[in-house]
Amino acid sequence: MAHGGGAAADVMACKQEEEEEVENKAAWLLGIKTLKIQPYHLPPLGPLDVKVRIKALGICGSDVHHFKTMRCASFVVKKPMVIGHECAGIIEDVGSEVKSLAVGDRVALEPGISCRRCNLCKEGRYNLCPEMKFFGSPPTNGSLANKVVHPANLCFKLPDNVSLEEGAMCEPLSVGVHACRRAQIGPETNVLIMGAGPIGLITLLASRAFGAPRVVIVDVDDRRLSIAKNLGADEIIHVSTNIQDVDEEVIKIQNAMGSGIDVSFDCVGYNKTMTTALNATQSGGKVCLIGLALTEMTVPLTPSAAREVDVIGIFRYRNTWPLCIEFLKTGKIDVKPLITHRFRFSQEEVEQAFETSAGGGNAIKVMFNL
Amino acid sequence: MAHGGGAAADVMACKQEEEEEVENKAAWLLGIKTLKIQPYHLPPLGPLDVKVRIKALGICGSDVHHFKTMRCASFVVKKPMVIGHECAGIIEDVGSEVKSLAVGDRVALEPGISCRRCNLCKEGRYNLCPEMKFFGSPPTNGSLANKVVHPANLCFKLPDNVSLEEGAMCEPLSVGVHACRRAQIGPETNVLIMGAGPIGLITLLASRAFGAPRVVIVDVDDRRLSIAKNLGADEIIHVSTNIQDVDEEVIKIQNAMGSGIDVSFDCVGYNKTMTTALNATQSGGKVCLIGLALTEMTVPLTPSAAREVDVIGIFRYRNTWPLCIEFLKTGKIDVKPLITHRFRFSQEEVEQAFETSAGGGNAIKVMFNL
Amino acid sequence: MAHGGGAAADVMACKQEEEEEVENKAAWLLGIKTLKIQPYHLPPLGPLDVKVRIKALGICGSDVHHFKTMRCASFVVKKPMVIGHECAGIIEDVGSEVKSLAVGDRVALEPGISCRRCNLCKEGRYNLCPEMKFFGSPPTNGSLANKVVHPANLCFKLPDNVSLEEGAMCEPLSVGVHACRRAQIGPETNVLIMGAGPIGLITLLASRAFGAPRVVIVDVDDRRLSIAKNLGADEIIHVSTNIQDVDEEVIKIQNAMGSGIDVSFDCVGYNKTMTTALNATQSGGKVCLIGLALTEMTVPLTPSAAREVDVIGIFRYRNTWPLCIEFLKTGKIDVKPLITHRFRFSQEEVEQAFETSAGGGNAIKVMFNL
Amino acid sequence: MAHGGGAAADVMACKQEEEEEVENKAAWLLGIKTLKIQPYHLPPLGPLDVKVRIKALGICGSDVHHFKTMRCASFVVKKPMVIGHECAGIIEDVGSEVKSLAVGDRVALEPGISCRRCNLCKEGRYNLCPEMKFFGSPPTNGSLANKVVHPANLCFKLPDNVSLEEGAMCEPLSVGVHACRRAQIGPETNVLIMGAGPIGLITLLASRAFGAPRVVIVDVDDRRLSIAKNLGADEIIHVSTNIQDVDEEVIKIQNAMGSGIDVSFDCVGYNKTMTTALNATQSGGKVCLIGLALTEMTVPLTPSAAREVDVIGIFRYRNTWPLCIEFLKTGKIDVKPLITHRFRFSQEEVEQAFETSAGGGNAIKVMFNL
Repeated sequence: MAHGGGAAADVMACKQEEEEEVENKAAWLLGIKTLKIQPYHLPPLGPLDVKVRIKALGICGSDVHHFKTMRCASFVVKKPMVIGHECAGIIEDVGSEVKSLAVGDRVALEPGISCRRCNLCKEGRYNLCPEMKFFGSPPTNGSLANKVVHPANLCFKLPDNVSLEEGAMCEPLSVGVHACRRAQIGPETNVLIMGAGPIGLITLLASRAFGAPRVVIVDVDDRRLSIAKNLGADEIIHVSTNIQDVDEEVIKIQNAMGSGIDVSFDCVGYNKTMTTALNATQSGGKVCLIGLALTEMTVPLTPSAAREVDVIGIFRYRNTWPLCIEFLKTGKIDVKPLITHRFRFSQEEVEQAFETSAGGGNAIKVMFNL
Repeated sequence: MAHGGGAAADVMACKQEEEEEVENKAAWLLGIKTLKIQPYHLPPLGPLDVKVRIKALGICGSDVHHFKTMRCASFVVKKPMVIGHECAGIIEDVGSEVKSLAVGDRVALEPGISCRRCNLCKEGRYNLCPEMKFFGSPPTNGSLANKVVHPANLCFKLPDNVSLEEGAMCEPLSVGVHACRRAQIGPETNVLIMGAGPIGLITLLASRAFGAPRVVIVDVDDRRLSIAKNLGADEIIHVSTNIQDVDEEVIKIQNAMGSGIDVSFDCVGYNKTMTTALNATQSGGKVCLIGLALTEMTVPLTPSAAREVDVIGIFRYRNTWPLCIEFLKTGKIDVKPLITHRFRFSQEEVEQAFETSAGGGNAIKVMFNL
Repeated sequence: MAHGGGAAADVMACKQEEEEEVENKAAWLLGIKTLKIQPYHLPPLGPLDVKVRIKALGICGSDVHHFKTMRCASFVVKKPMVIGHECAGIIEDVGSEVKSLAVGDRVALEPGISCRRCNLCKEGRYNLCPEMKFFGSPPTNGSLANKVVHPANLCFKLPDNVSLEEGAMCEPLSVGVHACRRAQIGPETNVLIMGAGPIGLITLLASRAFGAPRVVIVDVDDRRLSIAKNLGADEIIHVSTNIQDVDEEVIKIQNAMGSGIDVSFDCVGYNKTMTTALNATQSGGKVCLIGLALTEMTVPLTPSAAREVDVIGIFRYRNTWPLCIEFLKTGKIDVKPLITHRFRFSQEEVEQAFETSAGGGNAIKVMFNL
Repeated sequence: MAHGGGAAADVMACKQEEEEEVENKAAWLLGIKTLKIQPYHLPPLGPLDVKVRIKALGICGSDVHHFKTMRCASFVVKKPMVIGHECAGIIEDVGSEVKSLAVGDRVALEPGISCRRCNLCKEGRYNLCPEMKFFGSPPTNGSLANKVVHPANLCFKLPDNVSLEEGAMCEPLSVGVHACRRAQIGPETNVLIMGAGPIGLITLLASRAFGAPRVVIVDVDDRRLSIAKNLGADEIIHVSTNIQDVDEEVIKIQNAMGSGIDVSFDCVGYNKTMTTALNATQSGGKVCLIGLALTEMTVPLTPSAAREVDVIGIFRYRNTWPLCIEFLKTGKIDVKPLITHRFRFSQEEVEQAFETSAGGGNAIKVMFNL
């Protein structure tokens, strides 16, 4: 297994396994809670593509949605699909015009291929491209496979001191990085985070790396809060699920911050979390809505609008891998504590891994080592 | 009366009235729907202040709220207060250090005096100053009076071709201008406006002046829509008050626009108007919430957030008078069609004017000529 | 010839010529001032490409540089190259995956193909892409040819009321539009333009279309100034070429503006024009350097820097075609007066057209009708 | 003396000296290199003012200019003036309406009082206010005095772990902070600094605090470079004063950076430093001009403009004290190593201190302890 040992260990592990390799296999989602490891024939290698041997892949909440319900938001799985998208691996082959990468390079993969030609792509907002092809988002096959073919420019070389597991973590980390960029987090931005689940914790790490001087994090679960504290939150606040408590809790949160809250991230998306975020943020600040628990929300939107508190939306990320890798390389962010469970890529373990991720409990990030 | 005649007529009218003047009087709000014209003793003229003879004053929705309920949002009228804040007049006296203005100058008045020293003031966001003193917002007296004392730097000289009534219209116009600035309206921004009431119409005029290539406006009232059409809307769309119709109406609106909607202004603030705005706006666009009908809203906030549609809040305005005057001077904006009713400043007419404004009907802007 | 007659005339003209067509020819730059019309074999039509019959092509200053010196800035013509890049035409064939265009569509062509994969492209600043392939910029062939193959997403459909000649003018207009965007021109931006040559005039038109309330333009040539006046400049100012006159001229310019200059465009790039721009612009304003006459400049850079006057650089444009077409369609910009000379695409006239453009005199834009 | 001991020591020292106090004295600049400590009668304490007992004051380059030449840039000392402006002290009295500060509070003083009423002030760019009254900038008296009267909102309370000397350092630090804000330094900005003098070193510290991942600093002086290295520069590069070496040195600098240079700060302002900065910065980057050695510069401005490298100007700072104090409190910035010399506030030492600062040598910051 590759984790922990950095570049040298990764490459060695790769060589051993190569000898055993026969054909490419992937984890196919065939029905609700039904994953089968079956052959996966790759498309031909284009001149600007690379072939990557996947070595680490993390399970995301959206993968779990697909696993449990065959859908996620408006995306529906209508035919068998390879699952998974948070991944890193080793270059096994490069297309004829690829110059930036070579066989043997350890890379993290950005999972979405945009059309590169629509207005949104040309304006640099490619994450909103309506023709995006994204690993494991139906009908596009994912990357929980021995090998995938991917555009070279979406594969980012990892420095020696960043492991493949950490490389796979660039994907969830990108969500936090993109949110911090859109909310313009910097050394003058006091940050409130609603929710200490995986996204809340990632946003905490990203806020810190962007220089936020003070981060307060709120949850209903003491265990999660204590993880947040260990990861560097200045203050943790236990709240109830009762909407009646909002006013009192807002005061508690504001006192814990000590000065005005500039940006609140709602990493949950319930009426209560959003209400708290809107009311707690100071005039002229921002609330960034990342968590999407509810579609329709009942929230006091006008009083905060009348204090020019803007609500910022987030969809995935763009141009985040280089910065994530920089944060990992310099140690400004350490994602290793978030990886709580590891599984092998085998028929025995694959559904078990998804059940572990789905089960909540003390799982934060569940990782496959392939 | 001053309207229509421009600078020369204004000054002449002023002279005549000056001879008759005995003491300063103002319209005091004494209780629900109870306005009395009574003496109003002005504070001393500070070195950076001017004394202004008020000549035109428009009635705003917030004035009507105070008139009808003795409150508006969180502001409560607890003791007699002079009402009114949209005004223009003629300089009658200047403080010892005032250089930019002279007796006889025709000016429009920005009604809010910020503290100039808090962080928000120093950062240029003085509209959010927590110590703002704003004409007719309790407990600060307003400007429906023969004369007021005001800081010279909040009095803006009118060009000869802009009447005092148009000067008074700078105040409501400023709301539209500030909204267009915050929403970054320009020659590439297709605009949807929900609501063709006074604020919707002002926002229409402002959007046009900022260069919006295409503006579609929506209302439940055909008469209002036809005014909007006359004021320059590209398309007007009649909608229902039934929330079930949203999906169908969104399609109608999008078809009327012909291309993507970049910015939607909700000038109403109901669940349906905001839902329509959120759903109709294209990925990466903005919804600007100006109307404040509801405090708590039930809206599909997450699907639009997941398309990076941001919700922008608005509170009054900042640094807008020079631009409003420029728009009026060059004719980029014509506010005269919005002035539908005029009253004299007399005990007989003052409550009648407020009732007219409150009554809805075909009143857009009700103006006093003092 | 297509000019003046709009869409119907263009298409009819196209049909007539198609019958006569034998093979594709282009104007090849073979040496200094040596252009030959010779066969030009096109690359195969890719699935996302279109084949365009070129109908109008304007001569740019950079084309003239290539024609006269076989180089422009750091670009050197080392082997025969098709010249020209400001063009519009009619779609003759579409690739298998092209959905947005059809045979017969009249289109304006954006001449640069970026790599779409580097960091600059992905961030939306594709004009800075180091691998840009740009019509007529060595070693990439240009578009003064009967036909070219080009990516569909760089061909923009013209409305019926915009002629192909106007379509070709989108290219120079794009420089002004990009400059106005980068300098953030809007209804509050008083604009000074140094130089009333083609770029200065284009920048004048663009500034107006972006809403600049007041534009003052400066030149050494009265004839050019009078064209600028006719195109809508508020004030024109005749200046000398003597650097000693700067202080006096700055005062004259500032008086002509009447209020502070927010943005100055230097469309020339001499020491004197830049010195004037830097000194005339008010504190906190911007100077946008478009003209590139000199490489090394001697200018008082620190006094303006110490007034926070920023110097903004410009390279070509990005995402400008839709806006240019919108401006042309609505009449916010009329480029027709800039087209002063027209030539046919024949061996007899091709060099003559370039000599005319090079000659200065009263030529603004020289256009080929193919 | 106050340095090193933090809050408790500062207050104790203050009490001892208060007993000895007779009347307020200040260092008056009477002529070239002539400073006399003489009585200084303070203006009356306004309702929003405080009286501050100055305890620490640093000498700035502009003070040295005044001392040596009776002028600095366009400012000329025409009559005796109290010198000095980088200061901190202890509140001795508060005006009747001051709520945020109390007697005994340790504060750092922002030295400039803007008019608060002009357009630039109202837009939040008060550093550009044309009516600024700035300590020690003629004709406004400075703060090298036992006591000064100053607006309360320009006095910022120091946390217990920040000494008064560090408080005085907020002023030079503010220059770096303002430059980093204007140049938008963050965790994705690779920074080049030209010059390792006091401003270069301050800019290095500020860039780091804003999260710059990599900072390369350049100077002609190895001693200064070694200080820069100790303060956290990633790479130091020794360069010549010979303009011929620019190309070679640019390559060296770019290699030392390892990836593209996003922002270059020219903290010197010579032709060579600016040329190096312009040429070394990557396309789309920024050069921030802070050093003002030359008025007129001869630099290759157009090639960098044609790569959209903008030149950003800097004048003093705005709204920087809270952030500076935050950086000092959290240890993100340590300014103590910059304080190389200390003097007492006595007739014997006052000119000696200025001579030391003027002498260059190994003096970085010369501090008075009053």
